[in-house]
Amino acid sequence: MLIIFKKMHQTSSRRSTIAEIAAQAGVSIPTVSRVLNGRPDVAPATRARIKQIIKESGYVYSSAAKGPRKGSSGIIDLLVPGLDNPYVTEIVRGVEEALERTGLRLALSFTQDESFGERQWLDKIADRATDGAILVLANGQSSRLDELQRRGIPFVVVDHRGELGPDVPSVGATNWAGGRMAVEYLLSLGHRRIAMIAGPVSHRCSLDRIAGYRAALEAVGISIDPELIRPGDFRLQSGYTQTSALLALPHPPTAIFAGNDLQAMGVFKALYLRNIHVPERMSVIGFDDIPLTTIVSPSLTSVRQPLFDMGRVATTMLLRLIAGEPLDSPRVELATTLITRESCAPPPSPSLKPREDSQQSSWSS
Amino acid sequence: MLIIFKKMHQTSSRRSTIAEIAAQAGVSIPTVSRVLNGRPDVAPATRARIKQIIKESGYVYSSAAKGPRKGSSGIIDLLVPGLDNPYVTEIVRGVEEALERTGLRLALSFTQDESFGERQWLDKIADRATDGAILVLANGQSSRLDELQRRGIPFVVVDHRGELGPDVPSVGATNWAGGRMAVEYLLSLGHRRIAMIAGPVSHRCSLDRIAGYRAALEAVGISIDPELIRPGDFRLQSGYTQTSALLALPHPPTAIFAGNDLQAMGVFKALYLRNIHVPERMSVIGFDDIPLTTIVSPSLTSVRQPLFDMGRVATTMLLRLIAGEPLDSPRVELATTLITRESCAPPPSPSLKPREDSQQSSWSS
Repeated sequence: MLIIFKKMHQTSSRRSTIAEIAAQAGVSIPTVSRVLNGRPDVAPATRARIKQIIKESGYVYSSAAKGPRKGSSGIIDLLVPGLDNPYVTEIVRGVEEALERTGLRLALSFTQDESFGERQWLDKIADRATDGAILVLANGQSSRLDELQRRGIPFVVVDHRGELGPDVPSVGATNWAGGRMAVEYLLSLGHRRIAMIAGPVSHRCSLDRIAGYRAALEAVGISIDPELIRPGDFRLQSGYTQTSALLALPHPPTAIFAGNDLQAMGVFKALYLRNIHVPERMSVIGFDDIPLTTIVSPSLTSVRQPLFDMGRVATTMLLRLIAGEPLDSPRVELATTLITRESCAPPPSPSLKPREDSQQSSWSS
Repeated sequence: MLIIFKKMHQTSSRRSTIAEIAAQAGVSIPTVSRVLNGRPDVAPATRARIKQIIKESGYVYSSAAKGPRKGSSGIIDLLVPGLDNPYVTEIVRGVEEALERTGLRLALSFTQDESFGERQWLDKIADRATDGAILVLANGQSSRLDELQRRGIPFVVVDHRGELGPDVPSVGATNWAGGRMAVEYLLSLGHRRIAMIAGPVSHRCSLDRIAGYRAALEAVGISIDPELIRPGDFRLQSGYTQTSALLALPHPPTAIFAGNDLQAMGVFKALYLRNIHVPERMSVIGFDDIPLTTIVSPSLTSVRQPLFDMGRVATTMLLRLIAGEPLDSPRVELATTLITRESCAPPPSPSLKPREDSQQSSWSS
C-alpha cells in the first residue's frame, strides 16, 4: 500500500468524482474517462483543460470509479484465460512482481471456465470492489472493453495477440520484428528453404509474424513459396500435423519457424517419430521463449516475447491510471529478441542428405 | 457467493465469536480453534460439547477470525512459492475451479520473492481481511503454522512435500505407493538394474518415494545397490548430473526413476547429448505428471500426483472450515496413479548392447 495508498491519503480531504470534473470542464463524463485512459480522441485544448482540472481537484481515479465507494479496495483484478498456457503464467509473474512493492492484493480470475458466458468476465470485475484491472483476453473478449471504459474502471490489456487498436491502454510486443529476426537468423546459417507454421489468422500477432517472415526472405531475393507457409493454431498438434505435411513435399524445407513455442514442440514430435535429428537434419525456431525452451532436448532457439516484462509494465501503467496520472502513450510495444540455443544449425551438407538423394547423385554422376 | 454467503446471511442475526463459544463451553480459545480446525488433540467429550455450542450459535468461522470484522471479506488467500514450478500452476488451477462456483475471490501471493523475509508470508494474510488461506509452502515456512492457528484464521495446506503431521489441515498424495508403482512397472517390463534419482532428503515425499522404490525391489528379491540411489534436488540440473554419474558406472542401469518430472527432463538431456535413445536404450519414468510430460518427445511416463485435485480438495476443506463445519479428517491423501507414455520399454536385448559388450561376447564364445 506504500505507493498508492499514500497518494490517496494525501488527497482524501478533497476528492472529486468524474462527474464533478466533467461538469467543471463543461464536457461529458466519457470525455473525462477518455483523458484519464490516455485515449487520443479528445481535442488537445479540451484535454489540457481537463488535465488541469484533474490536477487541481486532487482526483484519484479509483475512488470515483463506482460512485460512492470509499477509498481504495486495495485490490487489483487480473483476468486471464487460464493457466494452461505457459505464456499466461509468465505474465502473471510479472504482474505479481510489480504489485509486490505496492501492498495491493492481486485477485486472480480465469475467464475460460466452461461455466463462463460471454459477458461474465466483465461482470467479474465490474460488480466488485476493485481499484483496476489487468486483462489477458481470450477470443472475442476485447469487444466489451468499451463498456469497461464507460463504467470508469481503469484497466490495461496485456495484448499478447496484438489485436487491439492504439487507443486502448495495452502492452504488446514487436511481432513483425520478431518474425523477421527469426528468419534472418536462419538465413545467416545458410538456410534458403525456410518454412513457417503460422498462428491463427484472427490474431494480429500471427499476421505480423508472417509479414516479418516474408520481409526477411524478400530482402535477400528469395521468392515466397506459398507451400512453405502453413496454417496453425498455436497448439502442439498443428505443429505436428503441418511438419508432417512439410516433410511430404517434393522439396522439404531445411528449417521450420514454428510461430510459437508450443507449436515448435509439435514440430519436435513429428521429427522425433521419423528419427530426423534436430538440428543436424532440421533447424527449428520458436516464438515466445516460455520456460519450456530450456527444459526440452535439444533446447529451443526462440524469439523472446518479454511476457514477464509485459505483465510488469502493464501493472505500472495501471497504477498510473489509478493514481489519476495520464499515460505517455496508451499503447506500449516491448522489443522482441532472439535467444539462440541448440535447435538451429547450418543446413545439412550433401553428404548428410537422405540416401535416395545420394543414390540419385551417383546415378547421374 | 452462492454457497458461503448464503450461509452467512442466514446466520448474521445471531453470530458468536470464538471467545463467546469458549466462554460458554468453559474452555480456552485455542481449544475451540483446535476443534474448528479438526485437530485430534481435544478430549472427545469436550469436542462434542464445543461442536454442539458451535452448531447452536450459528457461528461462522471467518466472521470471528479477527474480532470485530463484519461479515465475510469475500476473499480467499492463496499463497504459493512462485509460478516457476509447473506443479504450483496445477494446484492454483484446482483452487480456482473450486472457488469458481462460490463467487469468492482468489487473492494470489508469492512467498518466494527476494524481498520476502521469514515471517512476512504470515503477515501477508494475517494483517488483511481474509476468509481463509490455502498455503503451498516453501522451505521452512511450515514452522509458523501454529501462529496462524492461534490467530484463528482458517487454513489448509496443499502439502505436496508430505512434510506435515496428521494434525494440520492438509492435502497430500500417496508418495510411497507412487514410488513403488513406478518401480513395479519397470520390473514388469523386464528391468532388473533400476536407478533412482531422489529428491531432497529434507522432504518427506522424497523419503517416501525412495522407500517405495526399495519396497518394490525387495519384494522380488533384488538387493538394493546403493550406487543406484542418487541424491537430487528436484531440479533439471541434478537429473542431468546424476544421469552422467550413473552412465559412468561399470554396470549402468537400464532404467531411471527420476523422482520428479523436472529431474526426468535433466535425464533426457544427459541421454540426448550422448545420443542414447529413449526408450530403446534407456527407460525413464518421472513423478508428478505435470503438463510438460505430454509436450516433450518422447512423452514421459510418470506417476501422477493429482495436483489439480489436491488444490480442489484443499479448497473444499477450507470452505467447510470457514462455514464452521469440522473436517472428517484434517489430513487427506489422494491416490497417485501411473500414466504410461513413450519413455519406457523393455531393457535393450543383447544385440542392442554397446559394441564393447558384443566384442567381449564374441571373444568369449
